[in-house]
Order: sequence, then C-alpha cells, then structure tokens
Amino acid sequence: MFPSPITQLFQIQYPIIQAGMVWTSGWRLASAVSNAGGLGLIGAGSMAPPVLKEHIQKCKAATSRPFGVNLPLLYHGVEQQVQIILEEAVPIIFTSAGNPKAWTKVFKDAGRTVVHVVSSSKFAVKAEQAGCDAVVAEGFEAGGHNGREETTTMVLIPLVADAVKIPVIAAGGIATGRQMLAALTLGADAVQIGTRFVASKEASCHINFKKAVSEAVEGATQLSLKQLTPVRLLKNKFYELVSAAERQGATTDDLQQLLGKGRARRGMFEGELNEGELEIGQSSALIHDIPAAATIVKQIWDEFQAAKSRIQQLNSL
Amino acid sequence: MFPSPITQLFQIQYPIIQAGMVWTSGWRLASAVSNAGGLGLIGAGSMAPPVLKEHIQKCKAATSRPFGVNLPLLYHGVEQQVQIILEEAVPIIFTSAGNPKAWTKVFKDAGRTVVHVVSSSKFAVKAEQAGCDAVVAEGFEAGGHNGREETTTMVLIPLVADAVKIPVIAAGGIATGRQMLAALTLGADAVQIGTRFVASKEASCHINFKKAVSEAVEGATQLSLKQLTPVRLLKNKFYELVSAAERQGATTDDLQQLLGKGRARRGMFEGELNEGELEIGQSSALIHDIPAAATIVKQIWDEFQAAKSRIQQLNSL
Repeated sequence: MFPSPITQLFQIQYPIIQAGMVWTSGWRLASAVSNAGGLGLIGAGSMAPPVLKEHIQKCKAATSRPFGVNLPLLYHGVEQQVQIILEEAVPIIFTSAGNPKAWTKVFKDAGRTVVHVVSSSKFAVKAEQAGCDAVVAEGFEAGGHNGREETTTMVLIPLVADAVKIPVIAAGGIATGRQMLAALTLGADAVQIGTRFVASKEASCHINFKKAVSEAVEGATQLSLKQLTPVRLLKNKFYELVSAAERQGATTDDLQQLLGKGRARRGMFEGELNEGELEIGQSSALIHDIPAAATIVKQIWDEFQAAKSRIQQLNSL
Repeated sequence: MFPSPITQLFQIQYPIIQAGMVWTSGWRLASAVSNAGGLGLIGAGSMAPPVLKEHIQKCKAATSRPFGVNLPLLYHGVEQQVQIILEEAVPIIFTSAGNPKAWTKVFKDAGRTVVHVVSSSKFAVKAEQAGCDAVVAEGFEAGGHNGREETTTMVLIPLVADAVKIPVIAAGGIATGRQMLAALTLGADAVQIGTRFVASKEASCHINFKKAVSEAVEGATQLSLKQLTPVRLLKNKFYELVSAAERQGATTDDLQQLLGKGRARRGMFEGELNEGELEIGQSSALIHDIPAAATIVKQIWDEFQAAKSRIQQLNSL
C-alpha cells in the first residue's frame, strides 16, 4: 500500500480514484479499478434507484475490494438513492453538486466513509465542518460540472491543502503519472481521474464517445452553459449552438430550452456525437487509446514511479 | 547553478524567470531578480522607445548578470523597440503576442537568445521552427493576455514538453516553490513567474495595485474581454461593466469602446482600482505580502528544496 492518508482511509493500494461519471462509470468500470488496486466509483447521477441497486450488487459480486458510489445531490430521487446505498452497505460515498451538510451525518452515523467534491477552499472548509473524511478539490480543467470561480488545479490544490486538515484528493486535468506526482507535490494525498477512464474498455458509455475522447486534441473542450451550471464539454454541434446563443445574449430560460432533456444520455450513452452533450475534461488531449482499466492504473503507476525517479535525480545534484 | 537546459542557456543560478509585465517590470525589478540569481525581464509593452532605452541602460548599470526584455509584438513602434534592443546589446529577448517568425531571425543573426511565449503546443512548434531557443508555455491561470483555448498549466506543460525539443518554461498560476517543483515534474525546465513579482517592493506599478494583489482572494480574477483579446483581470468596477455588456451580447466594437485607451496604465500604474484595467493571475490568491524581489526568489527556492525533500521521502518508502 502506497503510504498516504487516502490509501489508509479507503484501504486501497494506490492513491488513484476513478471518478464517478454519468453514463460512464457502472459496476464494470468501478470493479475493474478496485480490482486493480485503485478505488472505483459507481456514478449514481445517471441511475434510477433500481438501476443503482443492480450496479451496486453486481459490483460487490465482481470485487472483494473497497469501492464507492458518487452521489450528485442535485437530482430528484436522491433520498431513494441514499436508502439503497445504506441498505447495500456501500462503504464509501462521494457526494457532489450540493451541500455537504445534507447527507454526511446520515452516512457517518451508519459508519460509512464520506468524501465531498468541491471547487474552492471555502467549500472545502464547509465539507470539513460537515464531518466529511476527505475532499476532492476539482480544478477548472475537469470534465462535466465545474465551479464558477474557474480556479485551476495548479492553484486550487495548494489553497485547499492549506485550508483543511482532512486529506485532499486532487482532480481536474490529471491523466498521467507525472501529473499525479505534480498533484501530490502541490499538496494532494491522492488523485481522482475521470477523463482517462472514459476511454477504457469497461466504461459503460458509447464506443463513439470513447473514440471521440481518444481522438480529441488540445483545445477540443470548453467550459460551457455558464449561466445554468458550468459544464466542460467536448466541442460539437450542440456546443456551437449554445455558444452562438450565449454570444447573442441568451437568457437562462433560452439556454434551458436549448439544452432540453436527455442530451447527456444521447451523447455519452447513445453515441449521438452531434446533438448530444459530451462531458469531458481537458486531459482528453493527452489520451490516445482505449485500454482496459487495469492497464490504465498500471500505466499511471509506472509513470508516477518514473517521474519520482527523475525528481530524485534532481535531489542528488 | 541548478542543472537545467534553461539555467545553462541563460547562464543563471536558479530556473526562475520574472515575467515581463506592462507598467510593472522596469529596470528596478528586472535587475533585482537578476542580482538574486534568477532572470529579470524588462516589460517593453508599456514603454515608448526612449523609455525602454533608459530602462535597459539603468538595468545594465544595476546588474552585471544576464537580464532580458519582454517584447510584445502587437503594439505600434515595435521596429524602434527592436532597434534599441539590438543597439543596447540586450542578451535575451522574450517575444509574445505575435508571430515568432517576425523577429526571431533578426535577433538570432545578432547572436541573441530568443524565447517566445505560447499558449498551445501548436504555437510552441511554430516557435521552434522559427528558430527560438526556448518557449514559455503559459496556462489559462496566468494574468494578462491569454490564449483562446483556455488550456491550463497542468495540461499544457506535458503537451508542450512532448511537442518540442527546445527547453520549456512553465508559466501560469506559479507563485511558490512547490508549484515550481510541480511544473518541473510536468516536464518544464524552468518557471516564469509574474503575479508574485507584481507584489514586490521593486515593481514599478502603483502601491494600490500591489496591495490589491496581496489582498486578492480565491476567485478574485476572471478571464475577460474574450471577444477582443482574452485577458485575465482582477474583478473590479471596470470588469463588472465589461461582464454586463458581454451578457447583453456586446459586439467587438462595443467592447473596444468600453475599453477605450490607457485603462491598463490608469489601473496598474496610476492605482485607479475602480476604473482601471488590472491584469493579474489566479496565483494572487496565494500571495499575502509585498517583499523585496530577492526575498521572493529565496522563498521560492527554499520552498522548492523543501518540496523536493518531501518527494524524496516518498521515494525511500
């Protein structure tokens, strides 16, 4: 086990957490990452309660190692999801997109480990005060939902690490081992990686989306829909429509209408690359293949060791 | 001398470069940083040719160590500035905000060292092809002028380091030694630091601006004026006006009129914090004092050594 407050907290081998992602991280991906020595998370955000229950049960059957559920707090039906997570004895819960006060005590009283995802040190302090065991500090470069202050991982991690006493997991822009070492150098105790695991064999998203991610180049994503909830998207026809509307002074209602319902599902799960909403991070520019999740964990770990050796050489000089 | 292609190229002790900044980095700051073992840059962007000449001459009198000039290529009068730089035998020139083909050959033919500032690996390759000796890769979190793709330092540095063979200087969001080590871990050979040196005794900007920078908190800056040239600003009354205009669908002409002339001078040099344009980076949230430039160089270096020792401890485990 790599020595870190996070590997100890979760009882995992490597300080590598696979982000819970809508339409992408079901039981196959989560169990594969946990079996490889990281922490896999089931993304509850796109799952109706019975679907979530099925994924948790299948994940438990597929791995004897710790795994978790990411629970966005902004959707309807969160009470039922909480009930399932409690009944199914999920050991680790990452909450996001909401107030950490809402459910942390319920989970802690049931003996679970709770982590909250934040985009600022102000919210990190709130998560700590709410009783969370750790925080994920997610920078501007991350895919999907994002903070309004647009603080990047390079600046956010030192700020959050200085603001709280609980362990800090860095997220946003991290897809390789040298970036993992950079994040630990900035003050993080572990990394949460999303985009890299989208382009994996076990991800439940559509192959069209995985291919688009592995082919994405620098500048292919942009933080969009800022008047609703800021979300980093792969640029496509839908993104261009939003962009044009925003340039012409679209209101929140205009944008809500343009977004409509089910676009994330259409894009990421059904593979409709033009009309769908494709949530992905800047690190897609660093990704060029679609390997198995275990291969990704091993590659990141090997790169991390190599990067450490390079720094060690600097030390001996 | 710290072993790096950049310390060798510039013949400096530490791989720390003080960014050339309008209304801020005159001869006092540049010579102080060079005397402290880094590389100081005079910011030519806000200097009429005779003023630039005076600053170069005073800098030469104040230090016997290497120093440079940062030359933005987008202003009128650049030909005269080039002439002065050649006549005054400035050894190192950083060009920015323009095509690296424009002047690199002229400077190289005169035996000078030339570095170009880029915000993408595509432009880094162009700078390499133009004959530059190194590139500065500047991420989204940087103050002042910025790229349209919004790639952050965490993602940009690995991409640029892989794309070119010439040395890479990381910029954007870096104000501390642990961030410097993170940047080197990502593949950079040195760092360029702007914001931290704005809040220094020797900076030529107004004390009101220095104080505002040292008091800035997380989220206090935003990339603005994206339809003209994207520029990261400290949020103030002027920023709010621009923001409101943009939300209402302002055209490029509207924004140009709102910006007017001389706003950067009013804000940064004359200390008019409401109406002025205040260019500063996200790392302002990490800065809480206004020390001498030599103290800043020493602090960054000490933090860098401490961060290296922490990584070394990881290695021994």
